[in-house]
Amino acid sequence: MKLSKKILGVTLAGTLAVGSFGLTNLDREEAEAKKGAKVKNVIVLVKDGVSSSTTTLSRWYKGSDLALDEMAAGGVRTYSADSAITDSAPAGTAMATGNKSNDKFVGVLPEKVTSPGVDEELADDPYRPVTNVLEGAKTKGKATGLISTSEIQHATPAAFSSHAEHRKQYDNIAEQQVYQNIDVVLGGGKETLESGNREDGENLLEVIDNKGYDFVETRDDLLNSKSKKIWGSFAPAALAYDLDREVTQPEEPTLAEMTKKGIQTLSKDKDGFFLFVEGSKPDWAAHANDPVGMVSDTLAFDDAVKEALDFAKKDKHTMVIAVSDHGNSGISIGNENTDGTYPSTPVSAYVDPLKQAKMTLEGALSQLNEDGSNKLEVAALYGITNPTEQEKTAINKAEDLGGTLVDLLAQRANLGFTTGGHTGEDVFLYSYGPGKPTGMIENTDIAHRAADAMGFKLDKLSRNMFMEAEEAFGNWGEVSIDTSNEANPVLVVDKGSKKVEFPVNKNIAIVNDREYELDSVTVQSGGKFYVSKEAVKIVKKAK
Amino acid sequence: MKLSKKILGVTLAGTLAVGSFGLTNLDREEAEAKKGAKVKNVIVLVKDGVSSSTTTLSRWYKGSDLALDEMAAGGVRTYSADSAITDSAPAGTAMATGNKSNDKFVGVLPEKVTSPGVDEELADDPYRPVTNVLEGAKTKGKATGLISTSEIQHATPAAFSSHAEHRKQYDNIAEQQVYQNIDVVLGGGKETLESGNREDGENLLEVIDNKGYDFVETRDDLLNSKSKKIWGSFAPAALAYDLDREVTQPEEPTLAEMTKKGIQTLSKDKDGFFLFVEGSKPDWAAHANDPVGMVSDTLAFDDAVKEALDFAKKDKHTMVIAVSDHGNSGISIGNENTDGTYPSTPVSAYVDPLKQAKMTLEGALSQLNEDGSNKLEVAALYGITNPTEQEKTAINKAEDLGGTLVDLLAQRANLGFTTGGHTGEDVFLYSYGPGKPTGMIENTDIAHRAADAMGFKLDKLSRNMFMEAEEAFGNWGEVSIDTSNEANPVLVVDKGSKKVEFPVNKNIAIVNDREYELDSVTVQSGGKFYVSKEAVKIVKKAK
Repeated sequence: MKLSKKILGVTLAGTLAVGSFGLTNLDREEAEAKKGAKVKNVIVLVKDGVSSSTTTLSRWYKGSDLALDEMAAGGVRTYSADSAITDSAPAGTAMATGNKSNDKFVGVLPEKVTSPGVDEELADDPYRPVTNVLEGAKTKGKATGLISTSEIQHATPAAFSSHAEHRKQYDNIAEQQVYQNIDVVLGGGKETLESGNREDGENLLEVIDNKGYDFVETRDDLLNSKSKKIWGSFAPAALAYDLDREVTQPEEPTLAEMTKKGIQTLSKDKDGFFLFVEGSKPDWAAHANDPVGMVSDTLAFDDAVKEALDFAKKDKHTMVIAVSDHGNSGISIGNENTDGTYPSTPVSAYVDPLKQAKMTLEGALSQLNEDGSNKLEVAALYGITNPTEQEKTAINKAEDLGGTLVDLLAQRANLGFTTGGHTGEDVFLYSYGPGKPTGMIENTDIAHRAADAMGFKLDKLSRNMFMEAEEAFGNWGEVSIDTSNEANPVLVVDKGSKKVEFPVNKNIAIVNDREYELDSVTVQSGGKFYVSKEAVKIVKKAK
Repeated sequence: MKLSKKILGVTLAGTLAVGSFGLTNLDREEAEAKKGAKVKNVIVLVKDGVSSSTTTLSRWYKGSDLALDEMAAGGVRTYSADSAITDSAPAGTAMATGNKSNDKFVGVLPEKVTSPGVDEELADDPYRPVTNVLEGAKTKGKATGLISTSEIQHATPAAFSSHAEHRKQYDNIAEQQVYQNIDVVLGGGKETLESGNREDGENLLEVIDNKGYDFVETRDDLLNSKSKKIWGSFAPAALAYDLDREVTQPEEPTLAEMTKKGIQTLSKDKDGFFLFVEGSKPDWAAHANDPVGMVSDTLAFDDAVKEALDFAKKDKHTMVIAVSDHGNSGISIGNENTDGTYPSTPVSAYVDPLKQAKMTLEGALSQLNEDGSNKLEVAALYGITNPTEQEKTAINKAEDLGGTLVDLLAQRANLGFTTGGHTGEDVFLYSYGPGKPTGMIENTDIAHRAADAMGFKLDKLSRNMFMEAEEAFGNWGEVSIDTSNEANPVLVVDKGSKKVEFPVNKNIAIVNDREYELDSVTVQSGGKFYVSKEAVKIVKKAK
């Protein structure tokens, strides 16, 4: 990465600027790192749906400091363009592209702005794709990586790698990911790569193979891979919770293992790398009000953060940002049980009941017999050991066993929940390394600070990467859409003698049956098609 | 304040250490401030019982950034020595003295340690008083101030100015405060100063007068005071909520006005000052699950923070720390109403219902007729305007009108609550100025960082300020307790020919009926008496 002189100037000023009395070891390490430090690599890690209470509870459960604790640096405002409480798609879009957006929108601009302080003009060009920091990193020659414990097509990793009107458009998202030339892709979601499961019938596994990836499906194969391009797809959909893995999916890697391997692989690129990592499932556990799953995967996430932090400390040119994309479940340490007793209720009263659980709610329920005859065993797996008569009755009578179990455990562990949905509070910002963001920031600032560090401007890239096809090609030929494959239309530019085709979701131009690879993917969004400046050049040149 | 060379050395190293890419205006102002900056003044502001959700909600209610937002710098762990969730007394003790303690304990060491990571030896000397940062500041010749919207004897201001086995020992706390030679004391709690309300029958108002304070009881008298010593006591107990003041207590000052006046007065001291400020009542509103009161006094607190921040920016030698002492109520933006709708529910859905309220719950209930005939008017004052039939029925039938009103408002505003007690999550750390703490810290670190900045060590001061009387005087005379005034015993050291008396809660030594003023107060705690090294010198010298 090359830093412009201007940016470097600001860095040096900053180096003189911020003093600190009680200099921690971390400060000193950073001071070392700062001696002429430039940002070469950026790692963004998202713990999906983790409220402050969840992090605190996870630390107590672990019994020692978190890797995150070393990196606490401020707060993040998480609201979307039109909602006080964001969902993961607009949150991911904000953190990846620097633009607040709407529910379901992945990497595209909003159609509606109501949140105070958000520029209403943002909705002037609804559904327009905007460049994300992974795409930006590629323009700087950096290696890129995408890791999650969900299916890799899920909202947050999707926002860091694709553009879609709706987060559920897994077919489109998966195809774009495959054609984005991402160097390391690790997570779940194999089913969307298989031709039989796709509307367009395309076999993306074959494409991955043709593109030279080492395609791996187990932890061992991942760890043994020597390839510079790895595609790991370890489950049809999501990976198991960390706590459940040994029982339910013993061949899957941990998030920390994926992160470590990702860093090892990407850091071979002399231009540096951008890596996105998501601990996806604390959010899902929070939706179910399952504190066991929340803690399990918050700690697994923290282990991944440690891998990133350890690398950054040695490397000295890596900026690490870790953050929750929003709160979830309204969890509190303390509930109506502790109204009067909270000032003298020890840590064990909140943690020990959780430690009784051998599996998360998802894991425990997966062990339920078809005839439901082992409800008490399932309850015991979930930590409801030695149930009282009242608890036994509740379990045996339960129509919604999951709902009953989480209620019982929350009572035992003195935890409160207010909702099965997300919540709107500011979350903690964690950061490390040169150029790191600090203070109270917007989720959109994460994208801009990462982009600044890597030396590009997202707005400028967006203008060149996603031009509306009619506007871009109007002067050069007749634009039409070939919908013979309905699920995967092709943008066609007819210049009379020559025809240039751009299949959507791919980084491909076809000029008279000859394929050219583009630097970015062609996107269909909001009824329009978007192509890059490079695509326009190809059309201009085609004779 | 004099900084030792060693500390100054660390500062300079720190100045070289922490760089920042995206330099904000605040960074630049701080950079200016740092050119040889020494800490002269320290201001600690506590928003009692404010969870992250409350701060976010308050910002939306206000409609623009908070002063706090400029200062977000990390997080604070709030647990006590024996409880995952702290009450205000041990939280105040932690922040004021640097020691985790137990429920009810004010400025004294704990008797019980169960929290993982807390040194069990801390409980080896239970109830021993430990020096707080206000007392430490006095040893450096600094002016000191204590401000709260509660009665000034309430747990948190008490912990920054006194030592008591139990937070409810208002008589002792008030007396110590009066004899601490604090330059500016502003808040409520006049009733505990009046002889008729005190067990010991002492007229502390007279003492305050004799000590040369300008004693003021109204906003106007406060703002007009030209004295260097001001004691403002604006209410028998607590001050009104900010939102209610104009109606219920129009002569009271705001927290921002008290803070500004405090800073103006204290900053005349060439040695600098230490000021403690508490926004006390967000906590009380949270206990009642009253979001109107929570927002009202969180914003009033933020206005006080702005006064401190504005001063610090100009002064360039002031460290400001603002923090919540613990979460409370398990409030969440979003509740079961928004389980399915949260991703597209605008800010107004959470804020507009609160804006309908003209008064807090306390304020509205104060307008209830004796016969309860105006319940609907009271409900309307509290924002339940145009009630539905169902709401009307609930209000009219309510046995606990307050409980009913907060439930109705929470439903309208889509807010969740899990408890009427405190909660255990990490809270945000806000800081500004040279030497400011950043990152994830313990609440006890606040005391130590403030002490470091002012150039003293709390542990060392404690050893000299609070020596157990038998140990301290054993070699010099016979120690006994005169309990002729049961509520206010006197420690007596008999040297044969001479007798030296130390009335508890006062900074006084009486040598053969002649009074000497001490630098610190004599404390009775846990059945023992504690005196300063200065007291020992007086006894030694008495012949």
